Amino acid sequence: MNNTIKSITNHRSIRSFTNQMIEEDKLSAILESAQAAPSSINGQQMSIIVIKDQTTKDKIAKLAGGQPWISSTPIFLLFLADYYRAKLAADKNDEELVISNNMEGTLVSSIDVGLAMGNSIVAAESLGLGTVCIGGIRMSPDEIIELLELPKYVYPMAGLCIGYPVEENIPDKKPRLPKEAVVHQEKYNSNINSYIDDYDKTISEYMKNRPNTQNIHDWSSSISSTYNKVYFPKVSRTLKEQGLKCE
Amino acid sequence: MNNTIKSITNHRSIRSFTNQMIEEDKLSAILESAQAAPSSINGQQMSIIVIKDQTTKDKIAKLAGGQPWISSTPIFLLFLADYYRAKLAADKNDEELVISNNMEGTLVSSIDVGLAMGNSIVAAESLGLGTVCIGGIRMSPDEIIELLELPKYVYPMAGLCIGYPVEENIPDKKPRLPKEAVVHQEKYNSNINSYIDDYDKTISEYMKNRPNTQNIHDWSSSISSTYNKVYFPKVSRTLKEQGLKCE
Repeated sequence: MNNTIKSITNHRSIRSFTNQMIEEDKLSAILESAQAAPSSINGQQMSIIVIKDQTTKDKIAKLAGGQPWISSTPIFLLFLADYYRAKLAADKNDEELVISNNMEGTLVSSIDVGLAMGNSIVAAESLGLGTVCIGGIRMSPDEIIELLELPKYVYPMAGLCIGYPVEENIPDKKPRLPKEAVVHQEKYNSNINSYIDDYDKTISEYMKNRPNTQNIHDWSSSISSTYNKVYFPKVSRTLKEQGLKCE
Repeated sequence: MNNTIKSITNHRSIRSFTNQMIEEDKLSAILESAQAAPSSINGQQMSIIVIKDQTTKDKIAKLAGGQPWISSTPIFLLFLADYYRAKLAADKNDEELVISNNMEGTLVSSIDVGLAMGNSIVAAESLGLGTVCIGGIRMSPDEIIELLELPKYVYPMAGLCIGYPVEENIPDKKPRLPKEAVVHQEKYNSNINSYIDDYDKTISEYMKNRPNTQNIHDWSSSISSTYNKVYFPKVSRTLKEQGLKCE
């Protein structure tokens, strides 16, 4: 297969960066790639904040629950769901903006964010850079909104650290669920318990061999012990306060 | 820049496909690329249904509001938000699955879908294929859920047509919003009205020169006349019925 597919399928999350800054032409290519992603009705319901300032990165590292790689990354990109421009467009045309305050609108902007962030990741990795997605910014949405001066109709969805990886700390590629449990033919196949059992064994082996990890749980126990609670409980309220979601 | 970035930034949506089938090794590469996307806590909250059956494609084309390219595409991929495996994992560990029924869970799965679908698009385009995303499947979620036998905790988020483009029908690349309106430095910049005015002119020009289009509206009038209503009103109810979202 070609280099693009080799690069995509070789993905791993990088949390250890050298202090080499990212060249401006590479950063531009990453941002242009994000903007080139398809978007529902060409609405482009996402924005990006480029953060290089050390104090801001240190604050975000803390607000995300203590993630030191946000401090050590040369560039932190914050991906936002964004209906602020749609609101300006509505005002310009004397229309009401209705969709942002509905699940359909929230889904559209979340998917747009995923598409754009995905393009940034693929672009960055094709340039020899490493990345890690940061969902932890949704732990402290009030503080992130204030810190980065997000207006109404804008919500912080996910962050992305980008930098040159420290070679000796690049982890092995993490195995994914068996294809048979994820890719269905013509209809959904619910009969997948045995694949989950298989994957539990695969992940236990992988975690045993991963340096600097205490987590040797299998996949299903790890997932279920996280998903038995609402681990970021402020998301629902703050989304509403920003004029997004619900009903 | 490298071929990956050239391919990503050259993206355009393709709605006109030849009847050439996609080679199995290419389809495998596209699906493997989707699975390689990063995912929150390695939960892999997305699944894909590969649809080649003509009758099914014809039905979906109709359910999506009449989109003939779903009938003519050789491969239709349906991307699903998926907490069904997380539910099996919870059952296996005598835990309760809480997160799926919360906005945080819905966001996570939507972003995972965007990341995976984005990888599929980039992979497909790197192989000379064309794609178009289909949000219209959310117009008829009840029928899609029944047709494809989606269990609880699974929701149809978006579709993707993939095929070889008819060369003479490839549209010009659609201009995006000015970078200054989308990419912010250090903090959000709300002062972007003039960029929207500029983009309105850009899009009007683009649409004038696009063959076979009646739509010569500018961007803001087009967006605001779509977003003044909930155009897919069944999303909120059906998400809840599938055990996803809310509060």
